[in-house]
Amino acid sequence: MLVCEHCAASYPTEKPRWRCDCGGTLMLESPARFDLAALRERASNLWPNLWRYADALPVPIADAVTLGEGATPLLPLAGAWGDAHFKLDFMMPTGSFKDRGSAVMVSQLKRWGLTEIIENSSGNAGVSVAAYCARANIDAHIFVPAHASIGKTAQIALHGARLSPIQGTREDVTAAALNAAQATFYAGHSWSPYFIHGVKTLAFELWEQLEFRAPDAVIVPVGNGSLVLGCCLGFNELRNAGMIDRLPCLIAVQAARCAPLARAWQQWMDVPVPVNKENTMAEGIAIAAPIKGRAILAAVRETNGLFVTVAESEIFNALKIMAKIGLYIEPTSAVAPAALIKLREQGEIDPAASVVVELTGSGLKSSEKISEMLGAEVAGGT
Amino acid sequence: MLVCEHCAASYPTEKPRWRCDCGGTLMLESPARFDLAALRERASNLWPNLWRYADALPVPIADAVTLGEGATPLLPLAGAWGDAHFKLDFMMPTGSFKDRGSAVMVSQLKRWGLTEIIENSSGNAGVSVAAYCARANIDAHIFVPAHASIGKTAQIALHGARLSPIQGTREDVTAAALNAAQATFYAGHSWSPYFIHGVKTLAFELWEQLEFRAPDAVIVPVGNGSLVLGCCLGFNELRNAGMIDRLPCLIAVQAARCAPLARAWQQWMDVPVPVNKENTMAEGIAIAAPIKGRAILAAVRETNGLFVTVAESEIFNALKIMAKIGLYIEPTSAVAPAALIKLREQGEIDPAASVVVELTGSGLKSSEKISEMLGAEVAGGT
Repeated sequence: MLVCEHCAASYPTEKPRWRCDCGGTLMLESPARFDLAALRERASNLWPNLWRYADALPVPIADAVTLGEGATPLLPLAGAWGDAHFKLDFMMPTGSFKDRGSAVMVSQLKRWGLTEIIENSSGNAGVSVAAYCARANIDAHIFVPAHASIGKTAQIALHGARLSPIQGTREDVTAAALNAAQATFYAGHSWSPYFIHGVKTLAFELWEQLEFRAPDAVIVPVGNGSLVLGCCLGFNELRNAGMIDRLPCLIAVQAARCAPLARAWQQWMDVPVPVNKENTMAEGIAIAAPIKGRAILAAVRETNGLFVTVAESEIFNALKIMAKIGLYIEPTSAVAPAALIKLREQGEIDPAASVVVELTGSGLKSSEKISEMLGAEVAGGT
Repeated sequence: MLVCEHCAASYPTEKPRWRCDCGGTLMLESPARFDLAALRERASNLWPNLWRYADALPVPIADAVTLGEGATPLLPLAGAWGDAHFKLDFMMPTGSFKDRGSAVMVSQLKRWGLTEIIENSSGNAGVSVAAYCARANIDAHIFVPAHASIGKTAQIALHGARLSPIQGTREDVTAAALNAAQATFYAGHSWSPYFIHGVKTLAFELWEQLEFRAPDAVIVPVGNGSLVLGCCLGFNELRNAGMIDRLPCLIAVQAARCAPLARAWQQWMDVPVPVNKENTMAEGIAIAAPIKGRAILAAVRETNGLFVTVAESEIFNALKIMAKIGLYIEPTSAVAPAALIKLREQGEIDPAASVVVELTGSGLKSSEKISEMLGAEVAGGT
């Protein structure tokens, strides 16, 4: 069933629907089973993807729209941060963890028989949804800011999606997409109840890769919160099935320059604090008004987690430290290791705790921007 | 043993060595075992990488320098080319198949106790070697053309490698690196006998992913030939171990604008034909004088394979066709699907044959160039 997170109205999953009649966001209640024997059976090179967890997904494997997403490496790495495991979730078909969500969401769009959808994102999600719609033979109509980078819009266009550049803010782009959605189905990834069910496979993989145990903490970047909500859902499903006994703490990271959720957390509020978004290199999580803000704050609280903000200098420093050990990640992804380094320095993480750092996107997505950042640094003589 | 491919002199593997005293290239003779029980045991989310084949690698797993490379998806996709399997070998730590070779080569450099090495490449191999040396804490000194793209040199520098930009041709860069190699160990990936042993794991994965059978044909791009030599070695090891009964045909693809090997093949010669390299979008395989040319031609002949050349328009067309089904690859990689499409049109591939197309590098490595190509196309009104 699709259940409204605002008024609790429920809807069957047979008909396409992306929000409640009351305007609220929908969550999907779907049974999750974990068959260790089946998992071991599927644990082969034939299944190096997230569909090995088909028993816990809302889409049957027969209907899977896949590009081979998932089963990304988990590397134990020692450094200034002590010991930690790094999840290389950028090793994905389109280079970001968003492919987990797109695979499951687009599979459902296909099941619904949709042949055309609307999405709004010029970032990793837009690229990912365009790629999976191409795979599924669904026409994607993607609204992007007029100032979006040519590299990403070119990729979206190559995947066959129709682009609508919109003047104004990210919020203006969303408004334009929602307006067009009166005629065509809106498949915004931040609204989709299916997208989160794809992202939750990150929790399943961490559990399996840590030899069927949950870590003590997972550090994730937060913008619209699909990682916090996906991890919370996935680890809850594992606990409800008796596979783990408690949830790992979710450590949610925002850039100090755009931290509506971290500010709310500091003020013990249960809804995001309105902020004036400043320019940050972590552009992928620069969301001033996250749609599911209340649910994100509740999820972090439920796991006894916390919010952390990081400054631009801390983000850039973490990006360079990761590259020095061989990992080339995009600036947005660097907020997670930046938070780990900060928390270790402040002694806020037990050295004995098992900590996982989620690395969300490839540095190859930002080569131009990273070159500029390095150039500016050299010019600045720092 | 390290054995010279020119004079057959042999050397122990205990001491660092990259070429024979006679100047010839070295190959590494190393025992390869395949234990299906062990493979199934390792076939888990804990081993989503090429080290599951440790029994067939020249480096013990205890000495592995890894970033989680290998175990890339193999997707069956139908299209203008009929049925074929596409190996998504760009889903790698640095975004290209080169990581297979770098992982094994750098592991051996580490075993030899080297703390500094020299390499010459501004392309995918240079980036890959820089990343793995960073992981292994080895100082990499990388010679690159002065005109190399800022994106790739910035990435190499971020990994902590020392860059030496050289004016002139790719051949001038190699000469400068070899000159410097009189003082420091030269770890050129085209010379290294260990690099090929990493690349051969591609053959092992195809065999395992096709349920322990070899395909009828594998289509690979060819510049310096590490894919042809790696696949030939890997499938031979599988055959010698009784795991398969015959080698798949290797279909080697070059850009028509730089085809020293394909020209030699057409003329029944066993060494590359000197060519005047023209500018091609498949820059990654634009090698006018491949070091192991004779061995590459012999390997393709041994497998009853063939060489194919593709025009610029065929390469760009294949890149767009791949994007339309959800796969964003770099122009160099597009030569392989371009060859498949061409061979199908010419009826040179049995429709019933099982064909694998190796996709070597991510389109994210070439976003700028791809945008330019699209812009030029639009401007040209084509």
